[in-house]
Amino acid sequence: MIRETYGPVISLLTDFGLTDPFVGVMHGVIYSRAPQAKIVDLTHGVPPQDVRRAGYVLADSFRYFPPGTIHVCVVDPGVGSERRILAAAVDDQAVLWPDNGLTTALFAECAPDAVVDVCNPDLFLKSVSQTFHGRDKFAPAAGHMAAGMPWADYGLPTDTWATLDLPQPVSHDDGRVEGEVIYIDRFGNLVTNVRGTQLPPLPRITVGDRAVDGLVRSYDAVEAGQWLAIVGSTGRLEVAVNRGDAAGLLGAAVGERVVVRSKMSD
Amino acid sequence: MIRETYGPVISLLTDFGLTDPFVGVMHGVIYSRAPQAKIVDLTHGVPPQDVRRAGYVLADSFRYFPPGTIHVCVVDPGVGSERRILAAAVDDQAVLWPDNGLTTALFAECAPDAVVDVCNPDLFLKSVSQTFHGRDKFAPAAGHMAAGMPWADYGLPTDTWATLDLPQPVSHDDGRVEGEVIYIDRFGNLVTNVRGTQLPPLPRITVGDRAVDGLVRSYDAVEAGQWLAIVGSTGRLEVAVNRGDAAGLLGAAVGERVVVRSKMSD
Amino acid sequence: MIRETYGPVISLLTDFGLTDPFVGVMHGVIYSRAPQAKIVDLTHGVPPQDVRRAGYVLADSFRYFPPGTIHVCVVDPGVGSERRILAAAVDDQAVLWPDNGLTTALFAECAPDAVVDVCNPDLFLKSVSQTFHGRDKFAPAAGHMAAGMPWADYGLPTDTWATLDLPQPVSHDDGRVEGEVIYIDRFGNLVTNVRGTQLPPLPRITVGDRAVDGLVRSYDAVEAGQWLAIVGSTGRLEVAVNRGDAAGLLGAAVGERVVVRSKMSD
Repeated sequence: MIRETYGPVISLLTDFGLTDPFVGVMHGVIYSRAPQAKIVDLTHGVPPQDVRRAGYVLADSFRYFPPGTIHVCVVDPGVGSERRILAAAVDDQAVLWPDNGLTTALFAECAPDAVVDVCNPDLFLKSVSQTFHGRDKFAPAAGHMAAGMPWADYGLPTDTWATLDLPQPVSHDDGRVEGEVIYIDRFGNLVTNVRGTQLPPLPRITVGDRAVDGLVRSYDAVEAGQWLAIVGSTGRLEVAVNRGDAAGLLGAAVGERVVVRSKMSD
Repeated sequence: MIRETYGPVISLLTDFGLTDPFVGVMHGVIYSRAPQAKIVDLTHGVPPQDVRRAGYVLADSFRYFPPGTIHVCVVDPGVGSERRILAAAVDDQAVLWPDNGLTTALFAECAPDAVVDVCNPDLFLKSVSQTFHGRDKFAPAAGHMAAGMPWADYGLPTDTWATLDLPQPVSHDDGRVEGEVIYIDRFGNLVTNVRGTQLPPLPRITVGDRAVDGLVRSYDAVEAGQWLAIVGSTGRLEVAVNRGDAAGLLGAAVGERVVVRSKMSD
Repeated sequence: MIRETYGPVISLLTDFGLTDPFVGVMHGVIYSRAPQAKIVDLTHGVPPQDVRRAGYVLADSFRYFPPGTIHVCVVDPGVGSERRILAAAVDDQAVLWPDNGLTTALFAECAPDAVVDVCNPDLFLKSVSQTFHGRDKFAPAAGHMAAGMPWADYGLPTDTWATLDLPQPVSHDDGRVEGEVIYIDRFGNLVTNVRGTQLPPLPRITVGDRAVDGLVRSYDAVEAGQWLAIVGSTGRLEVAVNRGDAAGLLGAAVGERVVVRSKMSD
């Protein structure tokens, strides 16, 4: 559906980090236009320019926000170029993002009801810098939206946008599933692109030189320091070490291959 | 006392860090239930699974929050296991935590007026993951509380809960006080478990191979780069270097032994 | 102008980091006094005791906040000493800072309309520690201000305050401009004290052993990994690497000399 207006919750998702004032200034710009906004810092810790990682964050987090939320996503290596800024109406919420494919994972789960090219200059600051559209375009646009500007005034409808080629797990005839690590969380847990629903019975999971048999239902089902596999909070297969740092111990990075086979076929 | 309802301030204390969307998603869940909530990120920088450190943070911060505040503490290595989620009414505020001893330091200062096993399933998301109860149980429970659910509906009263064995300073007959470093702050200051009120006159403080004579009243009472001892903002003895990183210079870690003796006894 | 009252937006700028509860406790203290406050964390990632960096952050961010905003700046190596706490009325907003020169860059752009020595003890907590005035003085003062305390009650007018000696770029008769790197952002971009308006035509910019010819209008105007110069979001000349870390690649630090000359003079 398309709501007439969006807000008051505005979620911010960027690669700006928190050591510079980039994020705080965006809050200032938003409050200047929408004093009643409720701003959530979804995360600003996306690795610099990692559009794919930002897209997974958005897709995994989206459904936990209230109706009307405006998700402002600024991982934007093309800032200052001619790339468009787009807004989508998705399942009772809105997303604002640079046209670089960031919404690919979200749209795979939930197709947008409408997308517009956000080209109404009234939405932006009067003076727009070359390098910080988070402050000069995204934040004021979100502020105007949360202050009641109707959807119809954002810009011009469009039905084309960039997409990313995301790695998909492959299910083989012999029951094997091959996937990869798509991100590593703060605890060093290896999150894969294999869904829990894709797992064979009695799975043996192999990542690098490490094999784990079976799934557990909680990290501490094994002793501290032991390896485990679990279906994590995003519904994806994770390989972890109880109270330890799996990524560090394995020397694994995003893109590391993961193979699941069923021990029943042994 | 036990208030009938709690909120609107909700403080979040976790080991989730800020590079993943864990914290932002908790905000989304809370606002979905309690749009009027005021969320404070007390800190999300507790070292992974460090329940003891989280407990000191809670005890040291508690009294600075307004009446009715709900403190949501999720340092939870037992997530997904059978450990309970508890709520305590403490001095006009509430604390929500996994039953792992996190409240030990707080309760030593201020005994709870009541504790309940938070088992009312209406407080949680309908679908609960195995690994992220911060999102699926703690955040929605806090949201419901802040939205006006009465205390009596949280769950069943209990009078047992886990406690931690926290290191206590020891005062000897000869006037010596022996303690240890309980945490190191962002500046590298060594915070000990010795209270300012336990210090002898003319104290000589020894940490590792470093001895400091006397207390100062401000960091810059000594030259930049010089060592000092001071009673810090939590009432505890700290050893520091003016404009420097004491922990780094000394190679000291949490648990490092601290000895205080009086120079009057020399 | 001097407003009668300030708030409800309170921006916090410190070197406290986010791993300790320092910032969260300040939020608690503010909400205890001003439940309707809207708190923005401008940044807490200023390097420890780096008053100069904090001053640039304030000057660069100030104009993006709404009228009435109270900017609370606590980079305060002199905490616990006799240094004063000052408040300034600046262009429809207020700034609260320890008297250590932090406002030098801001006041160079926008002179204060009034400055007061914030000495009214009603503004502070009853018990004031020696090491954490952010919690005990700055946060409660900001809370009282946002709760409606009139400007006239903050303290006593003063017309003296500390200033910093900030490095200024030098324009030579031969058209050369000499400046320096004043900070490095999260992406590794080298931000200089040379204003875009000071640049000669066809500039050749030299930093360390790296020379860049001309200015681009967006980072991705060059290939990934290529060097570029651009006028950044604060109006200052920046030297950067598209999708790369210029500071890391060059081994450059704050204070690194920058020379701009015009290729027209070759």
